[in-house]
Amino acid sequence: MALHLVRKALGCPSFNRAFHGGTVADPVPQNNGTHRIFSGIQPTGIPHLGNYLGAIESWVSLQEECSSVLFSIVDLHSITVPQDPAVLHQSILDVTAVLLACGINPEKSILFQQSQVSEHSELGWILGCLVRMPRLQNLPQWKTKRASLKQEGTVGLFTYPVLQAADILLYKSTHVPVGEDQVTHMKLVRDLAQCFNKKYGEFFPVPKCLLTSMKKVKSLRDPSAKMSKSDSDKLATVRITDSPEEIVMKFRKAVTDFTSEVTYDPSTRMGVSNMVDIHSAVTGLTVEEVIRQSAGLDTARYKNVVAEAVIQKFAPIKSEVERLKMEKDHLRKVLQVGAEKAKELAKPVCQEVKKLVGF
Amino acid sequence: MALHLVRKALGCPSFNRAFHGGTVADPVPQNNGTHRIFSGIQPTGIPHLGNYLGAIESWVSLQEECSSVLFSIVDLHSITVPQDPAVLHQSILDVTAVLLACGINPEKSILFQQSQVSEHSELGWILGCLVRMPRLQNLPQWKTKRASLKQEGTVGLFTYPVLQAADILLYKSTHVPVGEDQVTHMKLVRDLAQCFNKKYGEFFPVPKCLLTSMKKVKSLRDPSAKMSKSDSDKLATVRITDSPEEIVMKFRKAVTDFTSEVTYDPSTRMGVSNMVDIHSAVTGLTVEEVIRQSAGLDTARYKNVVAEAVIQKFAPIKSEVERLKMEKDHLRKVLQVGAEKAKELAKPVCQEVKKLVGF
Repeated sequence: MALHLVRKALGCPSFNRAFHGGTVADPVPQNNGTHRIFSGIQPTGIPHLGNYLGAIESWVSLQEECSSVLFSIVDLHSITVPQDPAVLHQSILDVTAVLLACGINPEKSILFQQSQVSEHSELGWILGCLVRMPRLQNLPQWKTKRASLKQEGTVGLFTYPVLQAADILLYKSTHVPVGEDQVTHMKLVRDLAQCFNKKYGEFFPVPKCLLTSMKKVKSLRDPSAKMSKSDSDKLATVRITDSPEEIVMKFRKAVTDFTSEVTYDPSTRMGVSNMVDIHSAVTGLTVEEVIRQSAGLDTARYKNVVAEAVIQKFAPIKSEVERLKMEKDHLRKVLQVGAEKAKELAKPVCQEVKKLVGF
Repeated sequence: MALHLVRKALGCPSFNRAFHGGTVADPVPQNNGTHRIFSGIQPTGIPHLGNYLGAIESWVSLQEECSSVLFSIVDLHSITVPQDPAVLHQSILDVTAVLLACGINPEKSILFQQSQVSEHSELGWILGCLVRMPRLQNLPQWKTKRASLKQEGTVGLFTYPVLQAADILLYKSTHVPVGEDQVTHMKLVRDLAQCFNKKYGEFFPVPKCLLTSMKKVKSLRDPSAKMSKSDSDKLATVRITDSPEEIVMKFRKAVTDFTSEVTYDPSTRMGVSNMVDIHSAVTGLTVEEVIRQSAGLDTARYKNVVAEAVIQKFAPIKSEVERLKMEKDHLRKVLQVGAEKAKELAKPVCQEVKKLVGF
């Protein structure tokens, strides 16, 4: 499916081979049973096209390629900004339904809700005692997020990169699929692993980034910005469960420019190039193939073509999400079993950490 | 024993009556089964005279007066500054031995190690998402502690008042014995309880301070400062397990002044007044009785009298500590049973909190 998404396992040639060359039938010898992948998604509404192409699609591939993969619905992170409890609760189930509908297989991946594994908070506290304040104060995301808030940020928002480090290290994860905007946070995770190991003896693997080659999907209303769940302009973001009519409407109103021809130049024609990137990603065609097929179309008609391709891509996922959303007990059961499996891995690590610390 | 220690349960007349008037035989009707006391002690070395007179002695009384009392060895707090793991581990057992030897009865109190009840960290995270950064930045203890460190403080040191709030609220505690230096932190705890209740519905009791009337024990080397475990001058602090020779020596070298008469005036004669306070506290005599008995003694001879009184007070405790320190398995068992009891109270509260938050 999306094997091409992962460009490189930074500094990890053996895993790189395993990932590119592995098959479902024979994953263990290739990754020696020593690789473990962790990633998380916030339960803040239905995932969108950017989440799908930038993360979820590659997760589905990763579970085929690595024998130990954990995907966490990171609800503890979501409350670092205000949430309505009922909406949050529904979002947790919705995200679970979407992940399953997209192809996350709970037999192959451990899919779980972060707050149900207490060891995340426990390790988060311990790691927070190894980080000095200026390190967090200087993280670019804190500065940006803080500036965007009407009120001062919460302690949770400030310390969330430490909890993120705990999320990853708790499972002795070796690889973390990240976007480029998370690279400074991964530096913190790596530094914390090394700091702990230096103080208490070699214990945590120092996890490596798995950078995906997928282009970031941009907002349909401001192609200089990432597509985001929290965009106040509802037309900017295409959600996985949007109706065909909504998708067509959003693409029609997508901001492009005054040139009608379809060409690809992300630096000068961000809007149209974003369409081409989306079109390429959802069809599996290369950018060149997409451009060739679109010869003669003006951007207005091209938007309809892209919208149609997105509708086609999401149609089976959308109907599966709708089916799963009716089966709340099933979703809860999946999360419960996932939490038990995650806990089984987390508990001995956390116990060992506590012992090393002197508790 | 030390019923006189608790001056008032601020704003809580019913408990006030219960505390002053209660007896071991009849505690439940007086506190209606609705009062719960929580307090903590850091496992950073053998407790000293100041810990004993300022906290532990009153804890022993509290367990007789209130049917639900929790005392926690707060190891998660102790790692907010660097600790040697082996020393920390020993300190946890030492503090347990001292508390038992001083009269904490694990049948009457829940005595437990904080890190063994994961809900402390979990609730700590959730409460951290309700506090805005400036609130912690402005706490006087953070400013003082930070200034005293060679390096910048850790995230753990910065956020510890939030964990302290979690410690207290996790048990729906109604009363917390605190020194005056903790009053600003208790304000944060109360505000957090109210903030949570406002956002998620009435849930936490807003805990009240139990201010003890016991005078703070001062350093023997600098009577303007509190007696402290971390004092670099080893002569400043009398530990519960010091040998009689050490105690005599420390009192002999205690800083007083050039007046040889024994009088009581804490504002102008801090050193001698500290001796008188200690003497009064360990013998149960009033200050006036102590002064009367000391008529004719010069301060040099009076120091010996006070040292002797402290030795007498600590002799049975010291020998019991020494006996208990040999019984590590027993100490571990006490902590394990305590953690189980604490967890039994903490778990449903934490689960309910998570449900209210939307997890």
